[in-house]
Amino acid sequence: MKTRAAVAVEAGKPLEMMEVNLEGPRKGEVLVEIKATGICHTDEFTRSGDDPEGLFPAILGHEGAGVVVEVGEGVTSLEVGDHVIPLYTAECRECEYCLNPKTNLCQKVRATQGKGVMPDGTSRFSMPDGTMIHHYMGCSTFANHTVLPEISLAKVRRDAPFDKICYIGCGVTTGVGAVINTAKVEPGSNCVVFGLGGIGLNVIQGLRLVGADMIVGVDLNEDKKSFAEQFGMTHFVNPKKVEGDLVAHLVELTGGGADYSFECIGNVNVMRQALECAHKGWGESIIIGVAGAGQEISTRPFQLVTGRSWRGSAFGGARGRTDVPKIVDWYMQGKIDIDPMITHKLSLDDINEGFELMHAGKSIRAVVEF
Amino acid sequence: MKTRAAVAVEAGKPLEMMEVNLEGPRKGEVLVEIKATGICHTDEFTRSGDDPEGLFPAILGHEGAGVVVEVGEGVTSLEVGDHVIPLYTAECRECEYCLNPKTNLCQKVRATQGKGVMPDGTSRFSMPDGTMIHHYMGCSTFANHTVLPEISLAKVRRDAPFDKICYIGCGVTTGVGAVINTAKVEPGSNCVVFGLGGIGLNVIQGLRLVGADMIVGVDLNEDKKSFAEQFGMTHFVNPKKVEGDLVAHLVELTGGGADYSFECIGNVNVMRQALECAHKGWGESIIIGVAGAGQEISTRPFQLVTGRSWRGSAFGGARGRTDVPKIVDWYMQGKIDIDPMITHKLSLDDINEGFELMHAGKSIRAVVEF
Ligand SMILES: NC(=O)c1ccc[n+]([C@@H]2O[C@H](COP(=O)([O-])OP(=O)(O)OC[C@H]3O[C@@H](n4cnc5c(N)ncnc54)[C@H](O)[C@@H]3O)[C@@H](O)[C@H]2O)c1
Ligand SMILES: NC(=O)c1ccc[n+]([C@@H]2O[C@H](COP(=O)([O-])OP(=O)(O)OC[C@H]3O[C@@H](n4cnc5c(N)ncnc54)[C@H](O)[C@@H]3O)[C@@H](O)[C@H]2O)c1
Repeated sequence: MKTRAAVAVEAGKPLEMMEVNLEGPRKGEVLVEIKATGICHTDEFTRSGDDPEGLFPAILGHEGAGVVVEVGEGVTSLEVGDHVIPLYTAECRECEYCLNPKTNLCQKVRATQGKGVMPDGTSRFSMPDGTMIHHYMGCSTFANHTVLPEISLAKVRRDAPFDKICYIGCGVTTGVGAVINTAKVEPGSNCVVFGLGGIGLNVIQGLRLVGADMIVGVDLNEDKKSFAEQFGMTHFVNPKKVEGDLVAHLVELTGGGADYSFECIGNVNVMRQALECAHKGWGESIIIGVAGAGQEISTRPFQLVTGRSWRGSAFGGARGRTDVPKIVDWYMQGKIDIDPMITHKLSLDDINEGFELMHAGKSIRAVVEF
Repeated sequence: MKTRAAVAVEAGKPLEMMEVNLEGPRKGEVLVEIKATGICHTDEFTRSGDDPEGLFPAILGHEGAGVVVEVGEGVTSLEVGDHVIPLYTAECRECEYCLNPKTNLCQKVRATQGKGVMPDGTSRFSMPDGTMIHHYMGCSTFANHTVLPEISLAKVRRDAPFDKICYIGCGVTTGVGAVINTAKVEPGSNCVVFGLGGIGLNVIQGLRLVGADMIVGVDLNEDKKSFAEQFGMTHFVNPKKVEGDLVAHLVELTGGGADYSFECIGNVNVMRQALECAHKGWGESIIIGVAGAGQEISTRPFQLVTGRSWRGSAFGGARGRTDVPKIVDWYMQGKIDIDPMITHKLSLDDINEGFELMHAGKSIRAVVEF
């Protein structure tokens, strides 16, 4: 079949809209009509050429929602008409990782996904001239139709709006999940969140959800303050306005340090501050932000020996097929908010504008509707 | 009263044997006759002058065992004749830290202990000429008699031999406790221990105690192999004999990485190897070794985002008054071994020899008996 897609033809170039060829689903695969997709920093990391492992040409996008159009041989958990959210972290429920309750990093389709192909080693997408197009993060939601492995799709309720729940495919789950699954924050905790963008805001509402006491947000951009307060932030700190050392200021503000701190920027210096503002004896710091290629974090080991721990979170520690439908339910029940975070709506033709809004810091999430 | 002690008069100098003045216990304090004391690397870190916070003159030593000789006003948990192990990490059972089940770092006497004085801000020790001598780590076990806060003493059974259980005052508890309290290693885990000295061997026997599967020891010194095997090591790796990358070798040997790794050396490069050989998705690396002043650890944050965690352990995460008596029981029941680790016995007069044996890598523990 043919479908419309925004193709990343070359690193650093704007996406190009075109009709691409899409083969139907093979064994264990599912054809999905994408109804909406968010634009996330990870897409931009690849588009810009900053990701040394980026492959081109590719159809980017990994934060979508849509409807099952056709299922391949052997697919048992989904049927035509099901509403689904694509998962860049699959959940096969049978690999060594899925069977270990400590992790969500299913490895079943990892290797091929990293190479931009389907589990059988081939791509379903090609250019009008026949050139193969890479899949991206196993999702490729910047296309009106896409093919995914069955294990990379979370089935969700049918009454949830696509233009909102697409955000659960990455940002919402990453932020809320880091609080619930990775840190397992207890009610009454004092927490510090660095970076109040699309991820940080979701960490904040995750903290509100679990009953944290102090929810301190740290951002260089003063405009983020009132917005973050809507999601539960109790204190705002702008590092530019702190006299003296930011870490010392945060330790004092939290009465000894954060029980949990979260880095939601991707800045290795901030990752260190986030660790060092954690409470002696028990503070945990969770890295969510993705740093530039080759960059390193450091600290004095004494910080760890005196009881802080340094951890990370990918996709909020969520097992997609199991956890994503629950988060959709929470949104529908009003337990979490998404609507105010979708600051811009675009058509696929205007997708490059979405990247510009992100760069200008004007959008939390720009969503493309098909 | 007067008592014999080995005094660290100046940084970098050998200890000097002398009769020192010792005042009796004040309110909440206890006078203890030290029967035996181990010599640990931390004593040497201070003696040598490497510790920028070292205070002189001081009576070092923090790994002792003895008998209560006199109790000060208000002391209720100990009486004359009780056998005790001094604790460099007190357990007051009422500070914010003691009341938080996540930490063992009681802060009650921390500030004064760090300044080399008793909780009331003064020292009980002085030189024959009246010069004040600093207490050390709240213990000062390199003296035949010493005074400690009541909360810095673990009461232990009376039939346990002093020349063995003194080692529980630091090395044994640090190693075994890091496994049990900090990492909470599950039976069947695959583990890697870096450094097979006094601490590493106790990590190894802790891992045996909790039923770990693979217990890999890593040491540059080939002589450590047969000794560590006695304590439960199942595989030995000498980095000098590994062709190619040590981390890759350990990941392969453990079938994907260590569930838990422990750094028991104090080398920041090894700390990084220990983290990076931990299993993707769930591996935890515990830093026990104390690095030189100002040194830093680093890694790529991706190591953490993909599920490894970096932690530290002080005094094995043990709450001394509660946990140390249990470890003494385990020793008496034969659950853990200590005897073969006490490789040398010395008199106080020969204590400097103990430091030389340590430097030469000839002793696991040299113990001074009074
Ligand atoms: N681990 C995961 O699974 C995962 C998933 C999605 C995104 N991410 C990563 O999370 C990070 C955040 O994504 P986002 O969409 O929220 O980004 P964003 O650009 O929307 O938000 C970043 C925020 O940080 C602020 N900021 C920048 N530098 C700062 C500094 N030095 N101190 C304080 N604040 C500062 C900015 O003003 C902005 O508000 C990115 O690195 C992204 O790649 C990780
Ligand atoms: N965290 C705590 O509560 C605590 C308590 C006590 C001691 N410590 C620290 O633990 C560390 C270990 O103490 P110890 O008494 O066992 O020391 P040790 O000197 O007896 O043992 C160190 C071992 O490491 C080996 N080694 C050195 N460099 C190595 C390398 N690059 N690779 C592999 N092996 C190497 C040596 O051969 C030796 O066997 C020290 O830093 C000490 O200060 C920490």
